[in-house]
Amino acid sequence: MPSESLHSEFGLIARFFTPPPPGPDAGVALGVGDDCTLLAPAAGWQLAVSVDTSVAGIHYPEDAPADAIGHRALAVSLSDLAAMGARSRWCLMALTLAEADEVWLEDFSRGFRALCESSGTALVGGDVTRGANAIGVTVMGELLPGTALTRHGGRQGDLIAVTGALGGGAGGLALWQQGERDLNHPLLTRYLRPQPRLMAGEALVGLASAAIDVSDGLVADLGHLLECSGVGATLEPASLPLAEGLLDALGEAGARQAALTGGDDYELLLTLSPACLDEARTRLAVLGLPLTVIGRLEADRGLRGLENQGDGGWQHFHGRSSRGGSP
Amino acid sequence: MPSESLHSEFGLIARFFTPPPPGPDAGVALGVGDDCTLLAPAAGWQLAVSVDTSVAGIHYPEDAPADAIGHRALAVSLSDLAAMGARSRWCLMALTLAEADEVWLEDFSRGFRALCESSGTALVGGDVTRGANAIGVTVMGELLPGTALTRHGGRQGDLIAVTGALGGGAGGLALWQQGERDLNHPLLTRYLRPQPRLMAGEALVGLASAAIDVSDGLVADLGHLLECSGVGATLEPASLPLAEGLLDALGEAGARQAALTGGDDYELLLTLSPACLDEARTRLAVLGLPLTVIGRLEADRGLRGLENQGDGGWQHFHGRSSRGGSP
Repeated sequence: MPSESLHSEFGLIARFFTPPPPGPDAGVALGVGDDCTLLAPAAGWQLAVSVDTSVAGIHYPEDAPADAIGHRALAVSLSDLAAMGARSRWCLMALTLAEADEVWLEDFSRGFRALCESSGTALVGGDVTRGANAIGVTVMGELLPGTALTRHGGRQGDLIAVTGALGGGAGGLALWQQGERDLNHPLLTRYLRPQPRLMAGEALVGLASAAIDVSDGLVADLGHLLECSGVGATLEPASLPLAEGLLDALGEAGARQAALTGGDDYELLLTLSPACLDEARTRLAVLGLPLTVIGRLEADRGLRGLENQGDGGWQHFHGRSSRGGSP
Repeated sequence: MPSESLHSEFGLIARFFTPPPPGPDAGVALGVGDDCTLLAPAAGWQLAVSVDTSVAGIHYPEDAPADAIGHRALAVSLSDLAAMGARSRWCLMALTLAEADEVWLEDFSRGFRALCESSGTALVGGDVTRGANAIGVTVMGELLPGTALTRHGGRQGDLIAVTGALGGGAGGLALWQQGERDLNHPLLTRYLRPQPRLMAGEALVGLASAAIDVSDGLVADLGHLLECSGVGATLEPASLPLAEGLLDALGEAGARQAALTGGDDYELLLTLSPACLDEARTRLAVLGLPLTVIGRLEADRGLRGLENQGDGGWQHFHGRSSRGGSP
């Protein structure tokens, strides 16, 4: 049982994951190929760091397209940077594979790299080992001290708002499990290729009082924000922005349930003073992203407004698991 | 297949992995509990980053003591920082578990945290998911620009030297596989609780011309260093420092083979000008660590001196896998 990686056994892997030489603005002082990569953080900025593991059969279907698996594994980590209002800079990938299939690896790598490029993220390290299929992605972003969108800044009277649309993650997964394979179906696109709201997060710095990304589901993630901020809230479930195609796919009740508790949407859930709403909407409109008010923070702890949402409700939802389980 | 972690299902996990509040010198601006952790790197310093995954049954025996698994998973990543001469600052842990066993988790956590403390490394993020047992550890260290011990600085005429002793990793694994369970056996200690040479790495800054850690085995790791430095070498196999108990456990031929190719030793393999040897030895002696000269760099590519080492030899060794496979 000596140390073993797929690296030498399947020499082709290095080909897919040797990043191109970083550009002069990438902040990379020494690239991949030594014991460590050396980065040059911007002086005076803070580093935002997070790690998420995507496990085959748990976090994504084993038979999902490989490029979507690559995209998605990075997207869920980048979403944490977006929720802090950080600018993405670097990532490291720990890939564990049961076998090395050249076509799968090429597709996986293409999906991962494309999101690296579009998000301005340099792949600066990694490890490829043999084992059950899983991808761990560590992301590192930068922000100026005092500008982070935390979970604890929400105040009584703030509006609760969400970017984009909800329920697409759960709706897309449901369709996939039912055998839908048209990758252009808007719900499959939402599930397989979530777009981390990095530019929205940066645009909301100075406007949002608190933020979190919707990974566990709106109700669960709002619960985290309320707990950290020490406030309660009333939601207006009728106002939830539903993902395109969701009503058709799941019906009215199923669609609302997916939007409330489905998770995997990777939208930003934020709070902000009513006075900041117009400016926030203007900034997000530039990005083609709607911002929908779905409730309001209140001094009384607890979450209200879900009483007529069928089975489930707060207590049920509250038991949902956490995507970004912290150590 | 919604996102699922062990976090909520086994509420006890948070207890083990919620780090203590970081001290004022930890460089943590916002601790664990938000979408990201915020770090404050030292202005003007570079960041050294690396990630390694330890997979059960591949990189460590499933039945190894849990605290040793925790220690070891962090140690193999810290060893990469040591090999750059970086000071360890922060780590993130991505833990994948098939089941949550309270006793195992408590032991694992204790081993991980103890090495965090002794190495000055703050655990600043992580993820706990369900899946086949594996641990991914991302480490981040700091160093001053221009001081890194890279693999490419070796020059003709430099001495090749190694810290501590070799073969203990392979020897300990062999004993474990033979059923030895006395955890105080020096070889088991070497295998299960390798000590990353962080202080040695820092002490060698300004003296060593190149360095790498011995993870794949001396010959393979020296091969990486030679290739990066564009030189060749002659080794003196008779001079290899053998780990305590290795001759007894494996006999003369087995011990030499383990020292040459066994891997998992996590010592530092370095090159340095003969003029720097005394000073390097003095600095390492303070740390209780011997520095043994085992060969010399030469202009002619290739590795010489192994001709009489039985079966194996350079071509055979060269095919060994890489512990720290880079993407």
